Amino acid sequence: MALQDILDRIAAAMAGTTDRGTVATYIPELARIDPGQFGIAVALDDGRVLSAGDAAVPFSIQSVSKVFMLAIALGRLGDGLWTRVGREPSGQAFNSILQLEMEKGHPRNPFINAGAIVVTDAVLAGRMPREVLAELLGFLRAASGDPGIHINEAVARSETATGFLNVALANFMRAHGNMQNPPERSLGVYFHQCAVEMTCVQLALAGRFLAGLPVSPPMLSQARVRRINALMMMCGHYDASGEFAYRVGLPGKSGVGGGILAVAPGRASVAVWSPGLNSRGSSKLGTEAMERLARETGWSVFGGAS
Amino acid sequence: MALQDILDRIAAAMAGTTDRGTVATYIPELARIDPGQFGIAVALDDGRVLSAGDAAVPFSIQSVSKVFMLAIALGRLGDGLWTRVGREPSGQAFNSILQLEMEKGHPRNPFINAGAIVVTDAVLAGRMPREVLAELLGFLRAASGDPGIHINEAVARSETATGFLNVALANFMRAHGNMQNPPERSLGVYFHQCAVEMTCVQLALAGRFLAGLPVSPPMLSQARVRRINALMMMCGHYDASGEFAYRVGLPGKSGVGGGILAVAPGRASVAVWSPGLNSRGSSKLGTEAMERLARETGWSVFGGAS
Amino acid sequence: MALQDILDRIAAAMAGTTDRGTVATYIPELARIDPGQFGIAVALDDGRVLSAGDAAVPFSIQSVSKVFMLAIALGRLGDGLWTRVGREPSGQAFNSILQLEMEKGHPRNPFINAGAIVVTDAVLAGRMPREVLAELLGFLRAASGDPGIHINEAVARSETATGFLNVALANFMRAHGNMQNPPERSLGVYFHQCAVEMTCVQLALAGRFLAGLPVSPPMLSQARVRRINALMMMCGHYDASGEFAYRVGLPGKSGVGGGILAVAPGRASVAVWSPGLNSRGSSKLGTEAMERLARETGWSVFGGAS
Amino acid sequence: MALQDILDRIAAAMAGTTDRGTVATYIPELARIDPGQFGIAVALDDGRVLSAGDAAVPFSIQSVSKVFMLAIALGRLGDGLWTRVGREPSGQAFNSILQLEMEKGHPRNPFINAGAIVVTDAVLAGRMPREVLAELLGFLRAASGDPGIHINEAVARSETATGFLNVALANFMRAHGNMQNPPERSLGVYFHQCAVEMTCVQLALAGRFLAGLPVSPPMLSQARVRRINALMMMCGHYDASGEFAYRVGLPGKSGVGGGILAVAPGRASVAVWSPGLNSRGSSKLGTEAMERLARETGWSVFGGAS
Repeated sequence: MALQDILDRIAAAMAGTTDRGTVATYIPELARIDPGQFGIAVALDDGRVLSAGDAAVPFSIQSVSKVFMLAIALGRLGDGLWTRVGREPSGQAFNSILQLEMEKGHPRNPFINAGAIVVTDAVLAGRMPREVLAELLGFLRAASGDPGIHINEAVARSETATGFLNVALANFMRAHGNMQNPPERSLGVYFHQCAVEMTCVQLALAGRFLAGLPVSPPMLSQARVRRINALMMMCGHYDASGEFAYRVGLPGKSGVGGGILAVAPGRASVAVWSPGLNSRGSSKLGTEAMERLARETGWSVFGGAS
Repeated sequence: MALQDILDRIAAAMAGTTDRGTVATYIPELARIDPGQFGIAVALDDGRVLSAGDAAVPFSIQSVSKVFMLAIALGRLGDGLWTRVGREPSGQAFNSILQLEMEKGHPRNPFINAGAIVVTDAVLAGRMPREVLAELLGFLRAASGDPGIHINEAVARSETATGFLNVALANFMRAHGNMQNPPERSLGVYFHQCAVEMTCVQLALAGRFLAGLPVSPPMLSQARVRRINALMMMCGHYDASGEFAYRVGLPGKSGVGGGILAVAPGRASVAVWSPGLNSRGSSKLGTEAMERLARETGWSVFGGAS
Repeated sequence: MALQDILDRIAAAMAGTTDRGTVATYIPELARIDPGQFGIAVALDDGRVLSAGDAAVPFSIQSVSKVFMLAIALGRLGDGLWTRVGREPSGQAFNSILQLEMEKGHPRNPFINAGAIVVTDAVLAGRMPREVLAELLGFLRAASGDPGIHINEAVARSETATGFLNVALANFMRAHGNMQNPPERSLGVYFHQCAVEMTCVQLALAGRFLAGLPVSPPMLSQARVRRINALMMMCGHYDASGEFAYRVGLPGKSGVGGGILAVAPGRASVAVWSPGLNSRGSSKLGTEAMERLARETGWSVFGGAS
Repeated sequence: MALQDILDRIAAAMAGTTDRGTVATYIPELARIDPGQFGIAVALDDGRVLSAGDAAVPFSIQSVSKVFMLAIALGRLGDGLWTRVGREPSGQAFNSILQLEMEKGHPRNPFINAGAIVVTDAVLAGRMPREVLAELLGFLRAASGDPGIHINEAVARSETATGFLNVALANFMRAHGNMQNPPERSLGVYFHQCAVEMTCVQLALAGRFLAGLPVSPPMLSQARVRRINALMMMCGHYDASGEFAYRVGLPGKSGVGGGILAVAPGRASVAVWSPGLNSRGSSKLGTEAMERLARETGWSVFGGAS
């Protein structure tokens, strides 16, 4: 079947699904999103971008931003970053502080909240918060080739007003000497990076460098890209990363805004979005769509179609 | 460079390495192995098997056996197995009982000891232990095409005499209702499966079905193979699985005997062996050899060579 | 009010209570006990023993036996015992293995199961199990002045057949080098000591040495008695020890057989029994009776009546 | 021996001790204190106050303040307080966040930092911070009969500037809905209450109501006093509470300023101070002095002298 047909069928199937998960409510601005939406976009190695459903509707990328901030951090600091954050799955929920105590303020990986806050703190490095946010937007615009990507200030304010757990994580790491900047400054950047808005098409385009597609602008060495992909595979969905690997078999990163970015190395960059979440905090329909796409294309990195 | 040359260079480099890690001492029979050995073998999709170093020396496969017992369990029970064991990285050491208590006797995945004991218990299912061991040897001999694979009884006795932690794990799960057979019976099988001896060549041949190589005898559906590969990627090296994914980028499984099996889907099945272990309980030189092989072949599932 | 009147009223109130908790079911022999029973006995400093209710009915003392085995261990080993077991509340349930892993097989205190198994193992010290059990019975008979105390073999067998969690704890400690004897031997003694049967009157008499009553036979130095009392206060009721201190204010030890021994230093030794347990594994009516007795006598060590 | 002689000998012995522990350094203002100081004071039931050493030197009471704020909270809220904080030993360090996560923001007891912050938050209840601090000083002045007790503002500022772990704890509980006031407001009060300065004489006088001495002004019902004493016994020294009960046998509360308040119900209120801490964060010489005093007076609640 042609890929466009696969995408159309997936979008049609999702449109007919009634059990769509639950929209995240702990960030008030996100709680208002209409759960009836679904979009998917695939950027291919020949430069084409196929899409279906609400692939042109902007959504809050939330934790998907952690991938891009990590790319910036690796570009700036190289392997020095790994003195401050680990590279192992945490076996705990995304916002767990337990592991952080047992390991003295050293987060297990860059995709749990604590680890992502450390990455942002490392990129900030005494600069002005707005400088770092400009760098992030610049990176996203360059990677996607789309200058229209921006931050939703209302969402950023909403996160700042309710992010007590992240304040706890940052201060806990500060107490253990693992924050360079005042916690509230790094958190300010972090809350804004989560509030970046992108469409599925923009996100799929921005992910091309992770898939190693020749049509992507050069963003990072291939050695580093491989490592970011490894981290997405191992830790991209918190304590449901094993499940995503088992069902989909592609490196990916989810966000509580309902977006997921996944990468089929050498083949494609895929973005899906549907706001309703499953019990583990990832898009319910988005995960199902990814599973179906991987099965029908045979793109799993763990072996071809039967 | 030709693959045989790559293997020869790796074997030569390893022969010249003085920091070879530490041979496992908690199983007395393993403590006597000469740490100066190193072997590597690669089974390719065209039927060739290339090797270098001590690739024809039998060693104790230990936890690598968990992969084959899992394959047998999935063949026998299908997805019913997953009611008794999870599919997520544990974030803990291979023999941790902590997670088991927090999750009421349900092990996080089939590759930590507790999970592997449950898998063996599920395959045993009231049968005679020797029947299950015959089934395992039959599977290994069929997959490798080599009838010479056997169990080292001295090693099995040694494990039985010192495996107090595994006795603790099995009884803990029994107390939580997650053992079907008397703990000592399932442990009897488990201690024997760990004592299977294979050479690198035999192990690489036996792993061909996981790489989906057409030259492999049919052992399991491709859908199940993909899932075993996903589990090896996520959990194959305990709390160093992230590190292996980051450095090597191939699904793999290590054992305290110093063996590692890794799979490049569609391309090759690789076995390395060197008895000295790193601080995480995996072969030190074996891991380094895998990293170098993946880098020089571009076989990482996370993206090609730069 | 005279003490006998207080006891009579308590017994009458308990007889009229319908919510009597739940009889322990995990030891089949205990599950058959009639939950309608309640007894209380108080041994005073003038030699009198007052009682009410079913104070002459024998019951399984279970974990209350840990106090007496600890007394024997301190008499035999002195402070050397504390290299193998701690003296702090565990903050966990009585059978938790989590703390044991975090502290490498060193149990937090002698009253959680793991700690009590270590104490028994230390008393066993290579001797025959029946020798140690004879020593325990001798101690109890001497302390109470009653030669009729014995072990219920059916209960001991029942515990042996179902004690998987204790088998796990003992083997876990063995793996960490904190068992001197083969786990099954020390467990054999442990399962039998829990199966000692006593009446409330016998138990109150046996506890006189802990209250420092002059009418007690000399069993242990007063310095050691104070320390056992401190341990009972801090750890005698597992993760409900704080609650017992808060409500009752006396050092005490409960057992899943429904018995509780408590001590008012210099004044009295008190035993209550009622088989129904609260959610924390202590006798529901027994705890209520202790609270009422302490309030009406002003015996709390934390301050007199208002 | 007369009590004054006992105190003089203890002070003399402490003056001659060279191993005095380590002054807390994480609060810069405390790090400057001369570790050579030692004071002890005992308030008796006949109104006398005996003392020795530096008993008239003011020191930072730190966590000892938690006892008085708890007394105020119980007076204001009664048992309603216990919906927000538990009454069990935590089995963890004073500043652990691990237990807080496992129990969803409900601290184990009012004497670990998280619990004390909740108590302060409950007393604050929307009022102005300075009102609550005035209430605390009023309570301390009334209980001790000494109007000279005050807060050291430099210490309070020092704590505010470095208390990242407490900021983490408060925000973590806020995220779980267990803070009534903005975290920074309750923390403001908390940092100031820890900075109260008192001498040993003042502290012993202020503690008389806990000992139930008739010479104390009436501060709280005897039933509540018993319960505060029970909590001090069980949780007054964090994960060294068992050790204090075992060695001293009196309800007590330590602070990182080197002060300890202990209570012999019906007999005396005792305060000691020496700035050097042991590995568990309590005054090293203070603990030794308490142990010696309890032994020589026979005041242990767990039984008289041998």
